[in-house]
Formats: sequence, C-alpha cells, structure tokens
Amino acid sequence: MKKRIKLIVAYDGTAYHGWQVQPNAVTVEGVLNEKLTELLGEEITVTGASRTDAGVHSLGNVAVFDTDTRIPADKIVYALNQRLPDDIVVQESSEVPLDFHPRFCDSRKTYEYRILNRKFPIPTQRYDTYFYYRPLDVAAMQEAAAYLVGEHDFKSFCTVGAQVETTVRTIYALTVVKEEDIIKIRVTGNGFLYNMVRILAGTLISVGLHEREPEDMMGVLAAADRTAAGPTAPACGLTMVGIEYL
Amino acid sequence: MKKRIKLIVAYDGTAYHGWQVQPNAVTVEGVLNEKLTELLGEEITVTGASRTDAGVHSLGNVAVFDTDTRIPADKIVYALNQRLPDDIVVQESSEVPLDFHPRFCDSRKTYEYRILNRKFPIPTQRYDTYFYYRPLDVAAMQEAAAYLVGEHDFKSFCTVGAQVETTVRTIYALTVVKEEDIIKIRVTGNGFLYNMVRILAGTLISVGLHEREPEDMMGVLAAADRTAAGPTAPACGLTMVGIEYL
Repeated sequence: MKKRIKLIVAYDGTAYHGWQVQPNAVTVEGVLNEKLTELLGEEITVTGASRTDAGVHSLGNVAVFDTDTRIPADKIVYALNQRLPDDIVVQESSEVPLDFHPRFCDSRKTYEYRILNRKFPIPTQRYDTYFYYRPLDVAAMQEAAAYLVGEHDFKSFCTVGAQVETTVRTIYALTVVKEEDIIKIRVTGNGFLYNMVRILAGTLISVGLHEREPEDMMGVLAAADRTAAGPTAPACGLTMVGIEYL
Repeated sequence: MKKRIKLIVAYDGTAYHGWQVQPNAVTVEGVLNEKLTELLGEEITVTGASRTDAGVHSLGNVAVFDTDTRIPADKIVYALNQRLPDDIVVQESSEVPLDFHPRFCDSRKTYEYRILNRKFPIPTQRYDTYFYYRPLDVAAMQEAAAYLVGEHDFKSFCTVGAQVETTVRTIYALTVVKEEDIIKIRVTGNGFLYNMVRILAGTLISVGLHEREPEDMMGVLAAADRTAAGPTAPACGLTMVGIEYL
C-alpha cells in the first residue's frame, strides 16, 4: 500500500549545485532520488520544501516521497544514511498523510545567516560562514531588523525574474546576535521569496556598515524595487535551519 | 639585520599530515616554509610551538623564523596570507627577541576537544567535531575533570614510546561545557605530552558513558600506565586554541 514518507535532511551544501535536480550537475535532491531508488528498489522522486541554492547548507530541510516499501517508516533513516555521502545526513524519517505537501502546507521556516566578522578568516569556519573583515555595527543591524518583522511586500528583497503570485510574506522573527566573532541573523517566516534571506542579510550588512540607516528599511520596503535593497550576500553563509508545519 | 618573526597560525588540519615536515607528505610547517621562502626570497625554516598531529586544527599555534627582510614585521601577515591556501590563515605577525623560542619559553597552552553528541551527525560540523551518538553524562565528565587539574604525573595519558625527560605536567584548568549538541572539553596547561589531550578526552568520554567513575581518575593518574586511561579520541575533534607566553 502506498504510503508517504517525510525526511528531515541535513547537508553541507558546499559540493552541491543546490537542492533541485538539474541536468549534468550534482544536487541534493538528485542524490536522495538515486539512493532511495537503490534502497527501496522502486523509482523514487522526492519533493523538497526549500529548494536551496548552490552552496547553501541545511540542518532541517524537509522532503517527502511515496513508496510501497515494507521497511518501517522510522527505520528508513538508518538504511538511507548508510548509502548517503558524508555531506548529506537524514535526521528523521516518518510516515505522513498522503495529502501532506512540504511546500503547499502552511509552515514556519527558519533560516540562519552567519557572518564571521573579524580581521582574518578562521579556516575551520570557511565553509559555513561568510567572512567579512570590516567591523559591523550589530546594534544598528538589530534596529533595522525590527522594521522588517511583520507582514510586508518584500518585492525589494526578491531577485528580479522570479515568478510568484504575490511578494507579500510575513516575518515572525528576525534577530541579530553576535557570539564571539560570528554574527548570526536568524529569520522565521511563513515563506521566503527567491534569494530573500540572502538579500535581507546583504541589506543588514549595509546597515552594519552605516551605508544605510535602520529607519531606511521602511523606504526599502515601500520602494518594491530590488535596487532599493542591499546586495545578495554569498550562499556559503546561509543555512536552512528547519520547518515547523502548522 | 637578522630579526625573529613570530606568527600566530590558524589552520584546518583536515588535509594535512600534521604540523611537522615529513618526506612525501603535505604538512602545515612544510607549506609555511615554502610560502615564506617564496615571499622573502631567502631560505626560511619555521619552528612551531605545538607539533599537532594529522587532522588536528588550530586557531592560534605559534611559529617563529629568522629573516633579513625589510618588510615590516606586522605586514608579513598580509603578504603571506595572499600566498597561503584557504585552510591556513596567519592571524598576526610580529617581531620578537632573537632568544624567543616557541617551545622552550614558559607558556600556557590551551586546547579544545569538541564532541558532537547527538543521534545523527551534522554534515557542516563533520570536520571539526568528533561525532559520538551515545549520550554522555556531562556532569560526571565535569566531576572527573576536577581530579585532573593541578600538577600530576600524566604518564597514563601519554602514548607509549614518546621520549620525554619527565611526564609531570600542570593543568591549570580543565572544563567540560555542553552548548546545544556540542560538548567542549577545554584544557589549559604548561605543556602536554604526546596525545595527552586526546587521551584526556577519550578518558572523559569513558566517564560520560559510566565505564569509569569520576573518582577513578585518582587511580588512573597513580597507575602511571597508559592502559589505565581511556582510548585516544580521534584527531578531528581537537583544536589548538592558543598559547600565552609568560
């Protein structure tokens, strides 16, 4: 009998051309499809919640697939991890209703953007932080972040050309915390536009440099124009933290 | 005029056969010698403070070398980093007296051993933590650590065959802290025997598993026998944090 399995998937995105299957490129989705197909002996195609870009990491992305297997749902994680490379580790497998869809069901997604803000890079942190040597004013970044919380049209924070019905999204929380040399920008929302978290990070960095003032965030939102916001921060600093389904 | 330059060197040890120059193996010392020789146009041989093993990382190892260069001491760091690979980054360069020796001058060295203690690995943390899935009792590890602080004969915590005049060392501080899923064992001492920090970590892990009790540490020290202590924990969890010269 067909059942739907949900996976929580962690990965180091450094070696991947992002989540989504592409011709002639190694992707996280592609590796999962291949290893699940091998393991279960039937053609498997997963559907992911967050189609992360090349170089973006994950602690808790969600994927589902349908299968006839008799392997108990909660055991699939062990058999699958034995086949996966070191840079993809499934954290949990469980059965979900057949109508559960990781993108179309209401959810709160959390991402974290990490900036290593010091004079010189630290080699062991080069894969999952963005190294930036000019000192950033964290208090100004925190003040700017407060303007972005809530329901807004985030068109200024979306890479041009993305096709979406609406650019209105709700940010439930957006915090900026400095721990030793790492500034962590953590954002939870009901959904994110293409490159939105990286543009939020790039814009907050510009505030940290006093190129923009915290209160400028109102104007950036109102402009509904990508050129009003800051640059798209590099992929390596971004991690998909997790998804809570409501 | 000859001057002596001190470097503070951070590295990701994953790709190196340790610090010390070896025939037919890439080492951190070897790369520094090669790049400094290229940069300064004279044959340079560095002397390191901590000859870390293959796979061990550093935030603040110390190396010195002598040179006739006219490049100001504090500028060498910039020119050198441009030539070094991504996994070695010098943090500081400065002139020191010609009689300063990184190993023979009195110092306090600090190391950190990091254990990722959870059900499944996290891919982005696979290089600089030791993944261990069985739950560890951190309170017991803390209690055991307290017995090891002070001046002791650490012969039980030294890999057999190492040639040293004395196996007596002083540990000034040994703390065990859990932050989220990572247990950090941090130790500061006046010097460490071969593999001593990794054997300390392995022994504390055995206490965390209740294979040994905290008060057993007195007997382990008194035995002065390597077989009395726990296993040598893997290199990937260990980081040379820094050295303070007195």
